[in-house]
Amino acid sequence: MTKRAYNFYAGPATLPLPILEKARDELLDFAGTGMSVMEISHRSKQYDKVHQESMSLVKELMGLKDDRKVLWLQGGASSQFYMVPLNLQLPGKKAQFVNTGAWSKKAIKEAKFYGDVEVVASSDEENFSYIPQGVEFDDDLAFAHITGNNTIFGTEWHYSPKVPDDVPLVGDLSSNLMDKVEDFNKYGVIYAGAQKNLGPAGVTLVVVREDLLDRVPENTPTMQKWSTQAAKDSLFNTGPVFPIYMCNLSLNYLKENGGIKAVEAKNNEKAKIIYDLIDGSGGFFKGHARKDSRSLMNVTFNLPTPELEAKCVGEGLERNLVGLKGHRSVGGMRASIYNAMSIEGVKALAEFLKEFQGNNQ
Amino acid sequence: MTKRAYNFYAGPATLPLPILEKARDELLDFAGTGMSVMEISHRSKQYDKVHQESMSLVKELMGLKDDRKVLWLQGGASSQFYMVPLNLQLPGKKAQFVNTGAWSKKAIKEAKFYGDVEVVASSDEENFSYIPQGVEFDDDLAFAHITGNNTIFGTEWHYSPKVPDDVPLVGDLSSNLMDKVEDFNKYGVIYAGAQKNLGPAGVTLVVVREDLLDRVPENTPTMQKWSTQAAKDSLFNTGPVFPIYMCNLSLNYLKENGGIKAVEAKNNEKAKIIYDLIDGSGGFFKGHARKDSRSLMNVTFNLPTPELEAKCVGEGLERNLVGLKGHRSVGGMRASIYNAMSIEGVKALAEFLKEFQGNNQ
Repeated sequence: MTKRAYNFYAGPATLPLPILEKARDELLDFAGTGMSVMEISHRSKQYDKVHQESMSLVKELMGLKDDRKVLWLQGGASSQFYMVPLNLQLPGKKAQFVNTGAWSKKAIKEAKFYGDVEVVASSDEENFSYIPQGVEFDDDLAFAHITGNNTIFGTEWHYSPKVPDDVPLVGDLSSNLMDKVEDFNKYGVIYAGAQKNLGPAGVTLVVVREDLLDRVPENTPTMQKWSTQAAKDSLFNTGPVFPIYMCNLSLNYLKENGGIKAVEAKNNEKAKIIYDLIDGSGGFFKGHARKDSRSLMNVTFNLPTPELEAKCVGEGLERNLVGLKGHRSVGGMRASIYNAMSIEGVKALAEFLKEFQGNNQ
Repeated sequence: MTKRAYNFYAGPATLPLPILEKARDELLDFAGTGMSVMEISHRSKQYDKVHQESMSLVKELMGLKDDRKVLWLQGGASSQFYMVPLNLQLPGKKAQFVNTGAWSKKAIKEAKFYGDVEVVASSDEENFSYIPQGVEFDDDLAFAHITGNNTIFGTEWHYSPKVPDDVPLVGDLSSNLMDKVEDFNKYGVIYAGAQKNLGPAGVTLVVVREDLLDRVPENTPTMQKWSTQAAKDSLFNTGPVFPIYMCNLSLNYLKENGGIKAVEAKNNEKAKIIYDLIDGSGGFFKGHARKDSRSLMNVTFNLPTPELEAKCVGEGLERNLVGLKGHRSVGGMRASIYNAMSIEGVKALAEFLKEFQGNNQ
């Protein structure tokens, strides 16, 4: 077998090795059924246990109140970009967004199909290198929306914007779900594609406050309404069984390893290693994100020239450090260090970068 | 390891053992990457090969013309119930449906959100025990729709309805995709949830004739349009990587084993074993479907009493024959014998049923 790579892809991304091993070991025989988890009915008691547990683990790990409904949907965060405004619209009321990058822009674009949209703050003019500080949303909105972390630009919210009590705050937490302790109950709606910090691609987590499920117009197709799956514990139709099963393993793994508090400490340690290296490089490595907005999950940085950046990505690959090429919007390099990335992996990256600087400065 | 079950579930359903073994063997190290296929980027060259091949295999195996676009979507056939009428609507033109059961009804319900709908034929009055024969659709429709196979009732289309040249025929082939040779180019649109005859749950195959991609109204959210994924080879956003990978393995397996022609012969043999047993039981087993409409994929039948039916399902389970309970709409028993079900499995079922009759008559 090939040596396991250190996988810095932005998503789909690295998963904890023990859960992959478990999935492999029981791939042909799930829970003593003599069938793969991919083959059993989504209405079977064996799968139902996984399904229900995966939802209760989300509630437990995130400390969610009883009035929060956990949904497993399909279509990615990209589908929530329209489902959020469709399901939260209120006649005559507008929505407000903070524009912190490419994914915020897409969310804004889709929201315009369902009502008036305002951008209350944006870092567009500085290539999204920071999270606007001191954001306050207006009263009397259909909803307020933030993108919790911006994979492309490597920025993350580290404070809570001010939101009036009557306005539901919506968070796209696709790339920083459960990366640090926060009050998840401050959100009316949370959505997240699983393939960054939670599991494999193919399932989208949505957490919605129950009273918000009634807003959707009656003449809305069944599958576009959150309330359809909310009423059936996400078993209205056949869901993405295997991706949900993998999320279940991942959530159990997080719980067994101390939950969000423990992984936050690990994430802080990992991020410090890389950011310290950047800051101590005398300008050879230059972080894209402003220090107050640095992401714990995606570290974006540039080298003195595009040629050196390409060389660094290539040599990293030879050292089994995979997926370090930056997104074209920022260029340079990007190390995605999600919950599942080990401290060992980050140390290997730091060591390599230091060596690369020594050889190429 | 538990003995491998004979899995007669209606879906998710049995998969070919060799593809499960392959998935297991490379679950931690896909294509020599040192990563799971669940962990690599959907933009990586290793995954892209799987992705593109899975689409070309669909075209090759189904003999699709060049102007057919293969899409891998999410949300199940249930999402296509609204996406079909949304994407095919034409101002002032109606759609016509044949109502052959629960899934047809759901498709009809969602189509009403987008225009006038007519049912041209129905078997509702006989609990959907047959496919209406000699169906002809009108001229000048937005589209015509059939459900190729009805899992709940065990009926399947064995002829082509008459459709005017200018009307696109839409087929929901979720539960009989590639079960027999047919002219798939007769359809303007085919859709199918993968979890019955193609792969695991979590991905939906859509095949659409390219000229039909232009009909969708401009003010439609991005993810609701087929054209969004059609323009990007289903890589507009992160798709369900692992389910598509499994479909790739399944399609390769079908090709290596002689394609649709060979599996049709196998399916005919399997179906004959069970239907012959039913017909030769002197009325102890009573098939739900009329003979001209019998499904190759789902065999639905009743026993003299509900008590005997429950006993038979229970004793089957003890013999490792899983998933034989019928849907509540028909009651009784249902044996789903999709492409991946072996002749050996069907023989084991027939043997058991014969024995059960002997012991309980």
